Amino acid sequence: MKTVAIAGVGLIGGSFGLALRAAGFGGSIVGVSSPATIAQAVRRGAIDAGVSLEQACVEADLLLLAQPISVILETLPKLAGKLRPGALVTDAGSTKRRIMECGAQALGGGFLGGHPMAGKESRGVEMAEAELFRGRPWLVTPRVAEDLESARAREFLSWIERIGAHAIVCSPEDHDRRVARSSHLPQMLATTLARGLGGRRDRAAVVAAGGPGLAGMTRLALSAWPIWKDILATNGDYIGEALSEFQGELGETLELLKAGALEQAFREGAEFAAEVRKTDAAS
Amino acid sequence: MKTVAIAGVGLIGGSFGLALRAAGFGGSIVGVSSPATIAQAVRRGAIDAGVSLEQACVEADLLLLAQPISVILETLPKLAGKLRPGALVTDAGSTKRRIMECGAQALGGGFLGGHPMAGKESRGVEMAEAELFRGRPWLVTPRVAEDLESARAREFLSWIERIGAHAIVCSPEDHDRRVARSSHLPQMLATTLARGLGGRRDRAAVVAAGGPGLAGMTRLALSAWPIWKDILATNGDYIGEALSEFQGELGETLELLKAGALEQAFREGAEFAAEVRKTDAAS
Repeated sequence: MKTVAIAGVGLIGGSFGLALRAAGFGGSIVGVSSPATIAQAVRRGAIDAGVSLEQACVEADLLLLAQPISVILETLPKLAGKLRPGALVTDAGSTKRRIMECGAQALGGGFLGGHPMAGKESRGVEMAEAELFRGRPWLVTPRVAEDLESARAREFLSWIERIGAHAIVCSPEDHDRRVARSSHLPQMLATTLARGLGGRRDRAAVVAAGGPGLAGMTRLALSAWPIWKDILATNGDYIGEALSEFQGELGETLELLKAGALEQAFREGAEFAAEVRKTDAAS
Repeated sequence: MKTVAIAGVGLIGGSFGLALRAAGFGGSIVGVSSPATIAQAVRRGAIDAGVSLEQACVEADLLLLAQPISVILETLPKLAGKLRPGALVTDAGSTKRRIMECGAQALGGGFLGGHPMAGKESRGVEMAEAELFRGRPWLVTPRVAEDLESARAREFLSWIERIGAHAIVCSPEDHDRRVARSSHLPQMLATTLARGLGGRRDRAAVVAAGGPGLAGMTRLALSAWPIWKDILATNGDYIGEALSEFQGELGETLELLKAGALEQAFREGAEFAAEVRKTDAAS
């Protein structure tokens, strides 16, 4: 591929540009974003130049949609019939069922959905870095398995590996079910905890009695609503499932507490937490 | 006061010694711990020398019990009738009702319970630092208000301020109710989340689909069981209350999710999370 276009040059999009360059990609990298973001992204070396979405369609062999989910859903239909022959469109949206439906309808096998499992607390191209994806999974959710076999898909997957990520293939359903547990449930717990404590009459005293544990368990409650609005709108059913499961598990914790029998639960929890840390460079 | 004794020279005990020195305390600081810990603590400058508990009773004007809760409960009865006249015993145990009962029985007004709201993920005197308590609350839980008025209590409280902490007076019941929400509930949520995800057949895939959020929300699940065994044994009733309340709040989150009406909840959660960060230097 000679030209890569990135629509939405924020933390993920910008990091993808930087990572491609660092991995030796010698072609052109163009970005579709606001003028201010384009200027920052060019300065950071994440892209060579800004273009319109129309121009990106004309030029790009690979087009990464690194936009909010709702914007990806608006963008995909606009791409139908506009792309170079043999071009591949992919995305970095954090839910996949709805996006895959939309992409398949607009582009058929020309769309291969994805979700790089990388992030930071701070967003924006200023925080982008070439190493963001190193050692992290990049989930790939083909419509049908054959979509992975095209020349364009193979080349895209090889770049995922070259920037240090490892591609993991799964169905859009499995993806959404897993992130409901691994990402959306933790967010719901942090928000529920913070909201619950914030609603107490003695909230100031509770804050004073809090330490790093409280800070850590409420950090996600600072997450930006617009992102979560999109996630909830496109994965609400599985998130509801995950919440219901957790309610059952919490009931079990309460029973074990009353029985004075939580030691085994602590051991099991510690084991999983250690496993998360083995595979998560970010911890 | 001329001599301060610290029983249990770990992160908290060691930091108290370092903090007293840094704040200009010119008297003697002795420690009661294992020989290996004493050697480390002397090397770090947290204490001048190690002594037996009996010797600490003979020498100390202030004795801080910075031990695990169960050890504090074993130590307090041993102190009865052994202390210097006018000496004050205090502690750093993270639950207070049971310790206050025990201390009052053994020492009456000679015991003033406390709980410095400071900590780190890593424990031990090697991690101790003079600045650990700066800007942090130091909860003080007198048996009766008059216990704060003695000369020894006033001097102790003045040193709490001199090392940069701020003393907050509350009843043992209020203390335990607050930490059940601010500290013990977050721990139970982290353990329940980690245990629940760890029990899934697709746990490896869930880990792969996890990011920094999952790591952050399961970090507390690594906490040491012996500490939590003591906390659960001495605050289980209030922790149960907190878990039941949270179950109700989670049900509300689920309802709001189904109604597509979580925006306000996110806003309220973010507001509280920001408040926690304003007052928590550790975040």
